[in-house]
Amino acid sequence: MENKIQLSEKEIPRFFYNIMADMPNKPMPPLHPGTREPITPDLLEPLFPRELIMQETSAERYIEIPEEVRRIYAKWRPTPLIRARGLEKMLDTPAKIYYKYEGVSPAGSHKPNTAVAQAFYNKIAGTKRIATETGAGQWGTALAYACQAFGMECEVYMVRASYDHKPYRKVMINAFDAQVYPSPSDRTEYGRQLLRENPGSTGSLGIAISEAIEKAASDPEAHYALGSVLNHVLLHQTIIGQEAILQLEKAGDMPDMIVAPFGGGSNFAGIVFPFLRMNLAEGQNIRCIAVEPNSCPKLTRGKFRYDFGDTAGKTPLLPMYTLGHDFMPSPIHAGGLRYHGAGVLVSQLLKDGLIEAVSESQDRCFKAGLDFIKAEGIIPAPEATHAISTVIGEAVRCREEGRSKTILFNLCGHGHFDMSAYEAYMSGSIKDANVTDEEIGASVAGTDMFQPA
Amino acid sequence: MENKIQLSEKEIPRFFYNIMADMPNKPMPPLHPGTREPITPDLLEPLFPRELIMQETSAERYIEIPEEVRRIYAKWRPTPLIRARGLEKMLDTPAKIYYKYEGVSPAGSHKPNTAVAQAFYNKIAGTKRIATETGAGQWGTALAYACQAFGMECEVYMVRASYDHKPYRKVMINAFDAQVYPSPSDRTEYGRQLLRENPGSTGSLGIAISEAIEKAASDPEAHYALGSVLNHVLLHQTIIGQEAILQLEKAGDMPDMIVAPFGGGSNFAGIVFPFLRMNLAEGQNIRCIAVEPNSCPKLTRGKFRYDFGDTAGKTPLLPMYTLGHDFMPSPIHAGGLRYHGAGVLVSQLLKDGLIEAVSESQDRCFKAGLDFIKAEGIIPAPEATHAISTVIGEAVRCREEGRSKTILFNLCGHGHFDMSAYEAYMSGSIKDANVTDEEIGASVAGTDMFQPA
Repeated sequence: MENKIQLSEKEIPRFFYNIMADMPNKPMPPLHPGTREPITPDLLEPLFPRELIMQETSAERYIEIPEEVRRIYAKWRPTPLIRARGLEKMLDTPAKIYYKYEGVSPAGSHKPNTAVAQAFYNKIAGTKRIATETGAGQWGTALAYACQAFGMECEVYMVRASYDHKPYRKVMINAFDAQVYPSPSDRTEYGRQLLRENPGSTGSLGIAISEAIEKAASDPEAHYALGSVLNHVLLHQTIIGQEAILQLEKAGDMPDMIVAPFGGGSNFAGIVFPFLRMNLAEGQNIRCIAVEPNSCPKLTRGKFRYDFGDTAGKTPLLPMYTLGHDFMPSPIHAGGLRYHGAGVLVSQLLKDGLIEAVSESQDRCFKAGLDFIKAEGIIPAPEATHAISTVIGEAVRCREEGRSKTILFNLCGHGHFDMSAYEAYMSGSIKDANVTDEEIGASVAGTDMFQPA
Repeated sequence: MENKIQLSEKEIPRFFYNIMADMPNKPMPPLHPGTREPITPDLLEPLFPRELIMQETSAERYIEIPEEVRRIYAKWRPTPLIRARGLEKMLDTPAKIYYKYEGVSPAGSHKPNTAVAQAFYNKIAGTKRIATETGAGQWGTALAYACQAFGMECEVYMVRASYDHKPYRKVMINAFDAQVYPSPSDRTEYGRQLLRENPGSTGSLGIAISEAIEKAASDPEAHYALGSVLNHVLLHQTIIGQEAILQLEKAGDMPDMIVAPFGGGSNFAGIVFPFLRMNLAEGQNIRCIAVEPNSCPKLTRGKFRYDFGDTAGKTPLLPMYTLGHDFMPSPIHAGGLRYHGAGVLVSQLLKDGLIEAVSESQDRCFKAGLDFIKAEGIIPAPEATHAISTVIGEAVRCREEGRSKTILFNLCGHGHFDMSAYEAYMSGSIKDANVTDEEIGASVAGTDMFQPA
């Protein structure tokens, strides 16, 4: 029995899977931030190419993946599905644990799956440059790679705190010929305004999003791109789960539960949605578990509301589980999970009880990450350790109850650029970062958002 | 046609290939540093387990790989062979370029191939702990991983300059439960002596080797391990080339030339020796090119002499191409190539004209590395960029001469822990580090070494 279940490049999926087609309750529409009426596609055209706007609202079950995109995927896809025999042995569990390893991509995470698709649709629409934001740098790296592959310019607004403290992601973005600017920057009206008010601002993801949107909207040759949350982003990631189904079939197995970290939803949706189709359309009963950090618990403790995607309130209002767009999560190391809201599709599925959500503490996640390093020899990204921690808990429960389960999780990226976080944990300086009910309540109450009718 | 040529775990080689069996001229014996008589195996027993001492002098063509070792290899092996279509396109060359990617291992380089084998032979010999040195940290990480896999302790003497400036490798070694000490340390007589003379010493690889040897020799439960140079180390790496042969056969191809970076020889030997067997035993005519840095040119400008493996003169005298064991190479970023001598097997092959050697300048290598990042989406280790630079030169020559060649090279590791070096290059602060004939002449003349009879 092999450790790694591999597919050939010919087996890279030919279609993105659109879960909208199979959802019992379709999500409510995004609303215009001013009129609070459902938005029309033309309102999004300054920001996105037409093909992506159509994907955002499409009800087609399968959307063909362009050959140009599949050819670039083939540089690292299909990614391996690995049986975690080392971890099973360490935990002495009867559970079978598999992980899909997305860290083999050029950016070291699952992000290029959608970056390449978004860059392609922009390229054929004539876009000359794409503006985006990045927190810790994973998404900025992925989009830089994708733009360079299609010969477009890319400018990345990187949260100032990360820009100053994580220089290697910046180097990597530059290596792909993209420009990186610390946000707030003096390149946008919004950035200049913030710098006037506070010259020493270290920025936030919400601010960086607002800057990138402003830049894209004001330049007729530019578009904007987002790395998670939106329907078309989740759509592109479904190649992960589709490959995993093929691989598990080769192994003669099928998961009882699937676990994935949760930030905006693209990582989770990527591995879960194709399996969830089996639940929705074929009567399967696979548990699908989203894992978020204790410190940013929109799924487990947030409210289902119409809210903005950014801090400045420039995006359409989206119906989602949210902590309020003013919510400022603790500066945990899993930067990719520090987002106040959940994507619309995932929010609706959670509301309908079709998926589950749990939260994990930061210290417990790093302990799980170190166990995984020893057991499997791969350094997981801090985001990925959230899934690992939950998987370990479930596998230990299998041992205690003497029952075998098959567990699949998404190892969404490597942690080679996060070694300082592991160092901090090993030196004892990382504790849990939690949030009180009062803080959540205050954020939800104090934010301009409203309950869907 | 696929980009990545993959093998199944069943195709991991079952034997190490020992080139000693096919060499027309066998290498001269190592000499005792005191008596200058050929050493006997018992002299090495304080440092190495018997099985490795036997491998060091074996003339058997094939040595079986233990199942326990193959099982651990299977966590990341067989490594992919990748057709560099992006690079071919960038260079507009008729050449076909393939690379074997060893960066997928737990340590991120080819080093675990021998670390796992050495740890296994130590384990069955009853060794409780292994001491070693590391420069930039690749080898220390690999041995830490391997010792942890077999439940042995590991202590790593890391050159102080690297210990202070490359903390993430240290974190990774710690994550595998090994101890790391900056060298010179107060844990050995030699280290204490050096610290008395110069408390601020930043150390060198030669000093760290001497410390690790002293520690291992003075502890009856401990052994020593080396990451390159020695025959048994080169032997273990031959799984790289054996896999590459299978993969190229699947692609219906065979190389006209093979290119690999050269430090002590394990990386080069690993990919080249199985192909060189075809030259020696089957009349093939594949060019085998070792690439060393301009600043440490033992193969292209050194002398063939009996010399020590370390600075302190504690190792046996080895017949090799050397710059003199006192030679202090410039602090180039390709730390793995900063070694004064070449392994005995490779030295003899070069002397007999069976392989070639070239040197590359540091700035040209980093430029090649950046081209590779853009073309292939993988960040190569600084060591690996030496091979890439030579490959690019050969591929451009193919274009100019209108001839196609098939080129294979060893992409021995990723550069995720070397981003500061890329940053330095991009900011213009890296120039070539060369060495004058006078400097080499002085080092060779001033060092206690002698011409083989």
